[in-house]
Amino acid sequence: MSRITADEFRAIIREKLPIAAMMEAEVVSLEEGRAAVRIPFRADWLRPGGTISGPVLMALADLAMYAVVMSLLGRVEAAVTTNLNINFLRKPAPAPLLAEGRMLRLGKSLAVGQVELFSEGDPEMVAHVTATYSIPR
Amino acid sequence: MSRITADEFRAIIREKLPIAAMMEAEVVSLEEGRAAVRIPFRADWLRPGGTISGPVLMALADLAMYAVVMSLLGRVEAAVTTNLNINFLRKPAPAPLLAEGRMLRLGKSLAVGQVELFSEGDPEMVAHVTATYSIPR
Amino acid sequence: MSRITADEFRAIIREKLPIAAMMEAEVVSLEEGRAAVRIPFRADWLRPGGTISGPVLMALADLAMYAVVMSLLGRVEAAVTTNLNINFLRKPAPAPLLAEGRMLRLGKSLAVGQVELFSEGDPEMVAHVTATYSIPR
Amino acid sequence: MSRITADEFRAIIREKLPIAAMMEAEVVSLEEGRAAVRIPFRADWLRPGGTISGPVLMALADLAMYAVVMSLLGRVEAAVTTNLNINFLRKPAPAPLLAEGRMLRLGKSLAVGQVELFSEGDPEMVAHVTATYSIPR
Repeated sequence: MSRITADEFRAIIREKLPIAAMMEAEVVSLEEGRAAVRIPFRADWLRPGGTISGPVLMALADLAMYAVVMSLLGRVEAAVTTNLNINFLRKPAPAPLLAEGRMLRLGKSLAVGQVELFSEGDPEMVAHVTATYSIPR
Repeated sequence: MSRITADEFRAIIREKLPIAAMMEAEVVSLEEGRAAVRIPFRADWLRPGGTISGPVLMALADLAMYAVVMSLLGRVEAAVTTNLNINFLRKPAPAPLLAEGRMLRLGKSLAVGQVELFSEGDPEMVAHVTATYSIPR
Repeated sequence: MSRITADEFRAIIREKLPIAAMMEAEVVSLEEGRAAVRIPFRADWLRPGGTISGPVLMALADLAMYAVVMSLLGRVEAAVTTNLNINFLRKPAPAPLLAEGRMLRLGKSLAVGQVELFSEGDPEMVAHVTATYSIPR
Repeated sequence: MSRITADEFRAIIREKLPIAAMMEAEVVSLEEGRAAVRIPFRADWLRPGGTISGPVLMALADLAMYAVVMSLLGRVEAAVTTNLNINFLRKPAPAPLLAEGRMLRLGKSLAVGQVELFSEGDPEMVAHVTATYSIPR
């Protein structure tokens, strides 16, 4: 069972993560070591080529990983990203984006996970992310 | 000499990159294969721990690399990021951020560069990025 | 169905990939878009701490991804790695290593995949790799 | 001043790093936070396309970073790589390879550095690496 509820994570977004709040990020599901986060489509995020800007995908993936970390450790708000690697695979459609994260390895000081990004309703992955968080002691 | 002027890149930000425009990103310098981009500090970007949110740094780095690509190829607006790797090194101060990008290798279909991120006025790097852009034909 | 047989890939290892041959790399399975490759344990590869040296894992992952590329494109021997990112998750046991690769996105000029590495007989992943190959035209 | 001498690092290679010893890796220079390591060319390392196999470059970069870590911390042999990202930029010539590493950030538990790889005698970088080591306590 997740050590933080979806409602608690929603409150963290609302109160402490203004960028995620501005993106209208929403927790879709949260279980032990896994989290799914969704953002609606917004025309503001388009870039030349008619695709969604890369930083939006990176922000979403980073948020999903933050939720994954808290699903296992509770409210470790001070956990910070130390490394993030993203491969952009396909141009996302002008549609909501879904990020599905899961923990690969939770160590004492580092948490490594992966996040798969999808355009809502399309099974083809649009981006793949691995991210490492440093866990405060 | 850069194949795009700083003014031309400013116009691209204003007209086509709403996220960069919203961040008030500003081209500091632009020469062949190199670009420096700056964003002011904004309290909205803070996250728990009193530091600037990672996605802001990623967005800034991605923008700097886009400028580097255009400094060598002109207005290839359809160039897109295929891979970005960021190492967060130090918590940035509540201060403007400066991104200094340069091309490592410009091939026919791929452009690989690195971007170093600094808090304005502090010589210690806060993050290091490598990024690959795919060049449209 | 794979566009190259396991026997053909074994011949490539034997004749053209002296490092893989030296590591006694062996194709375990090969299907369209997926490959599993194994190397036996060898005391030579230990490093301080009693663990298997990182470069051995990187070499194995790179080889698995090469097989994945050929499973979809046939004998494109000139395909080369352009980017590889590895997260080391757990110290591998002194045991054979298994790499399970699969394609995430096969484009016209780039192929992006992921490889999961395991100590034989242990379900816990020891390393996670994403790699990009450039496809010759 | 480096906290380990070049001779001490040579002894570590000889006695504890059989892969580096097999590659005939040689410390070219070692100072506080910087290290240069060289390997001779060997036909065994060629792969289809007449270029040096990627894993050789990864092994060399990883070794250079290990030397950089020790230049600042002394003989922390148990330090292990947690993440390595490599961008292959140009096909290396059939010539010795030189890796020039430097620390970007030495924290309490993590050390992040970058390594630039060159074919000896050629100023064009053949590969760029960032690597993170976990520092034992």
